[in-house]
Order: sequence, then C-alpha cells, then structure tokens
Amino acid sequence: MSAATPNWNAVLEQVRDVYERLPFNELLGLKVDHLERQRAGFRFAKREALVGNFIQGILHGGVISAVLDTTGGMMATVSALGRMLENGCSREEMAANFARIGTIDMRVDYLRPGRGDRFRSTATLMRAGRSVAVTRMELTNEADALIAVGTGAYKIG
Amino acid sequence: MSAATPNWNAVLEQVRDVYERLPFNELLGLKVDHLERQRAGFRFAKREALVGNFIQGILHGGVISAVLDTTGGMMATVSALGRMLENGCSREEMAANFARIGTIDMRVDYLRPGRGDRFRSTATLMRAGRSVAVTRMELTNEADALIAVGTGAYKIG
Amino acid sequence: MSAATPNWNAVLEQVRDVYERLPFNELLGLKVDHLERQRAGFRFAKREALVGNFIQGILHGGVISAVLDTTGGMMATVSALGRMLENGCSREEMAANFARIGTIDMRVDYLRPGRGDRFRSTATLMRAGRSVAVTRMELTNEADALIAVGTGAYKIG
Amino acid sequence: MSAATPNWNAVLEQVRDVYERLPFNELLGLKVDHLERQRAGFRFAKREALVGNFIQGILHGGVISAVLDTTGGMMATVSALGRMLENGCSREEMAANFARIGTIDMRVDYLRPGRGDRFRSTATLMRAGRSVAVTRMELTNEADALIAVGTGAYKIG
Repeated sequence: MSAATPNWNAVLEQVRDVYERLPFNELLGLKVDHLERQRAGFRFAKREALVGNFIQGILHGGVISAVLDTTGGMMATVSALGRMLENGCSREEMAANFARIGTIDMRVDYLRPGRGDRFRSTATLMRAGRSVAVTRMELTNEADALIAVGTGAYKIG
Repeated sequence: MSAATPNWNAVLEQVRDVYERLPFNELLGLKVDHLERQRAGFRFAKREALVGNFIQGILHGGVISAVLDTTGGMMATVSALGRMLENGCSREEMAANFARIGTIDMRVDYLRPGRGDRFRSTATLMRAGRSVAVTRMELTNEADALIAVGTGAYKIG
Repeated sequence: MSAATPNWNAVLEQVRDVYERLPFNELLGLKVDHLERQRAGFRFAKREALVGNFIQGILHGGVISAVLDTTGGMMATVSALGRMLENGCSREEMAANFARIGTIDMRVDYLRPGRGDRFRSTATLMRAGRSVAVTRMELTNEADALIAVGTGAYKIG
Repeated sequence: MSAATPNWNAVLEQVRDVYERLPFNELLGLKVDHLERQRAGFRFAKREALVGNFIQGILHGGVISAVLDTTGGMMATVSALGRMLENGCSREEMAANFARIGTIDMRVDYLRPGRGDRFRSTATLMRAGRSVAVTRMELTNEADALIAVGTGAYKIG
C-alpha cells in the first residue's frame, strides 16, 4: 500500500468528521451513530429549536426531511468512497469525488408525529451504480416507533 | 357576520404569525414573503449555519427540503382555512383543524447547487380536496435561478 | 354475526376478483400471489407486449410503475376493508368505501433493468391512518433480483 | 457536416419512431403529439383495456404512471441527443447513448379521476446535467382538466 492509498478506517473517520462538522448538521445536533459499507445513521436529541408544533411539541417536518437527506447522503458517500478504495483511487481522487456528491432527489413519508426525546436515523443502500446511488432511510424515536421513511437518489460519479 | 366568524385578513395574519414563530422556522430565518389563497411563500438569507458544503458555501440540502416542506404546508393551511371560512366554520373549528394539518409525503428535486445570498420559496396549489391538498414548491435565489422544486401531499381534513 | 356482516375470507376473495378482472390488470396478466392484512402482491409473466427496450428485451418502466401502483392499492384496500370489518361495517358500507379508494401519489425507484421471465410484486403496509394509507412495494424476478421499489400514499377514507 | 453527422429532424423522427413502436407504448395507443428540445408529449384515446374502475370508467392509475414515465423519458432522450448533436457526436455514439437512457425514479401525483375520451401528456425539462435529466410531466384530458402531474429523474450519460 503506497503512502497515497488511504486506509478504510481513516476514510470512515474523515466522513464522520465532515458530516458532524457541517454547520447545519451541528445546528441539528447530529452525531454519527453507525457508519458501514451498507448502513449509516445519526442520532440526535430533541431541542426546542427543532420543534414544529407548539402545542404538541413534536419535531418540525423540515427537521425530519433534513435528517433523512443527510443520512442518505452519508450512506451514498461511504458507498462511493468504498468502491473508489477498492479500485485503488488515491486520496486526492477520493477527496475530489467527495466534493461532487449531491442529492438528486428525495421522497419523505411522514408516518407518525415526531414525538420523543431521542431519535435515530439509518440509511441502507438499495442501488450503487457507477454514477447514481439510491438509499432508503428511516427515522425512529427511543421507543423504536417509526416516525418517517424516505428514499433518496444521489449523484456519486 | 357573527362575532365568532373570523375575518380573512385576520386569519392570514395568524397563519403568518404561527409560521414565522415556529422555533425551527426562526432558526432558518424564514419570513413570510407572500400569502394568498393560491400562492404562499417565504424569503430567507444565507447564514453560515445553513451551509452544507464548506468549500462551496452552498445551502445544505436539508435546509432546502425543510423550507420547501414548510412552504407547501403553509399553502395547504391557507387553502384549508379559506375553504372553512367559506363554509361558515367558527374560529374554534378552524383552530382545531389548523392543529391537525400535517405533511403526508414530499418529494424534493435538487436542480442546482444552492448558491446565493437571498432565497425565496413559493408554493402553488395543485389539488385541494376534502382531506388532502397537493402543492408544488420552488426555491429560487436573488438571480431567479431555480435551485430546487418539490411536490407535497398534506392532510388537511 | 348478522346476514349483512361479511366474512373476511369472502372479502379477500372479492378483492382478488376485482383486482384480477380490472381490464388493465388483465392486460398486464396480473394474478394475485398473496393477500393478507399486512402483505399483498401479484405475479405475472413477461410477454412481448410488456417490453420497453427492443434490444435488451426488458420490461417497460411503465409496466413496472403500473404493477407497483396497483400492488400498493390492493394492500391499502385490504387494510381499509379489514379495519371496517373490525368496526362492524356492513357489506354496503364496505363496497361504497372500496369504490372511493384511490392513489394520492407514488414514487418508483428503478434499481435494475427489468430482466427475467416471471415477476412478483409485494406491498407492505407502512401506515394505516383513518383516511390515508402508506405502502412500500417491491418488484423481483424469478432469481429474486430486486428490480424496483416504490412508495405509495392512498386515500382510504 | 460529415456523412456521419445526423440531421436534427432525422433524429427527432427516429425518436418518435422508437417511442411509438415500443410494444407497451403501442398497447397504450401512444402517438407522439409534440417533440421539441424543451417539450415533448403524447396523445392517446381511452379504450376499455385502459380502465381501472368498472363503475366510473376512469383510466387505471397504472396507465397514468406509465404514460408519464415514458413522456419524461422521451423528453430526457431528446434533450440528451440534442446536446450530443451540438457536441458533434456521431450517429453511432448517439445510438449507443440512446440505448443506455433509463428512468432513475419518478413521482406521480393523481389530482383528479382519469375521466375523458382523449388524453395528452407533456413533459418539460427542469434540469439537463451531464448524466442526469429531471423532467416534470402533466396529463390532461380533452377538456384540459389536469388529471395527474409527475416528476422524473433520468440517467442520460
């Protein structure tokens, strides 16, 4: 392994860092909960700033869609970088690719009001093509109630 | 018109207040830009906390989806309340209905990177049924570049 | 049980009949493969009329979206009728409700080219509210390759 | 212009031919109604085989999703081929690209029951990137009532 070949754990660590430090993700309080080749997710706690309904004190729908989007994006990113590593890409090529990854489109289905104190999101990989990845996402609360699901298509090439 | 019958302008004013004061909407800096029976939208300015890509300084995809969701929701709300007013509903019935309105699902299409300093969202009404409203949403920047479009289904009954 | 109370197996049999006899479902060659309170699906075989690409001989994307839509619709229907039966609704009320069920919206993700000779679709229930049901759907071929997934929202009230 | 450089009108003619001769499109009775760089659409007539509800005699939701998918696909195809022509691509390169175009995902919103005798679909181009095109689609009847809208993402690179 040449000096330029990144180590997989180092890659994962970097992805985690980038995602946790994105200003808007910090605002949402997102911490990476799990990060693997086929699964990735965040955890976060309810704060008053994330509320979308005074009376019910539930999560704002926009928080839910934002979390699902960034969860699918992290999954697509890890998948794309994993494949690049297998293909012997250099750190520079991987960094350049990382900067180009973006959401094409996303669907969110709001299944239940966002009640709870602690939430977890998870994304699984449905398709990992040459230039497009498709992921499915879920958001659950501490009682494992399924609050929302989503599907996203991401440009990765 | 009885004392209990709300005035349409007062209804619009209340919708505006509720949406601007939702904690997460305040976080996003959303101000109601226009609010009519067939069109509704917000404006907001870029702040560092809304950024999703360090290098490019563009809006986080989650900000975009959150803004589009709440824009469609405000459109669906105004449409539902307008119909209730026409049907002679009381202030109490309208308030009870308002609290029940929620997103069923939403699609967001990210057309261009979210570059710019000032952004506007707008929603138009595609369908206004008895229990479901469908809206289409757009997000543009100060140069009128179309950054994202979306479609949402909202429970209004 | 009064004469007017329908039997659950008779209800399922009627749903099966209606769905298999819909002209467009006959055109697609859909046969009900399984039909339960939480799962429902069809099977069908490839015919030349369902092809969407001469060279590759794969299923037309429109066949895939049509099958997923009708699969989710059958799932939503069975769920709504099951709940009505539990609530003691009469045959007439159930028939009237059946006629009103319709798709609000649907998303389809095309994961792989539609290669194969025999296909199966299945839908699972994600949400069964008072007036809206949400289902997720899958289409696989005889090798269990996942060709497409979808999510649908259905009006059931 | 070399012998290998295709003529734009000939390209349009070939796209029209391919789309009208696809077996499933023939089954639906689709005829190309208009075909330009920014707009493309079909027309078709109701036949009993396209019905999805005995009592109401309305179009099957699957017919609607199938028509919208193929309409967006034709729009994405014309856009991709137009760009290739501008870039001086040969007939062979364009044919190879044509064979690779496919739907990534699609959303359909069913706004009104599919009543009517003659229908028209139209797609407009929302985004035409290097590898992904996004289109919005509509279906109307002979009274210009808007029956359904959709959004599709297509792989074109």
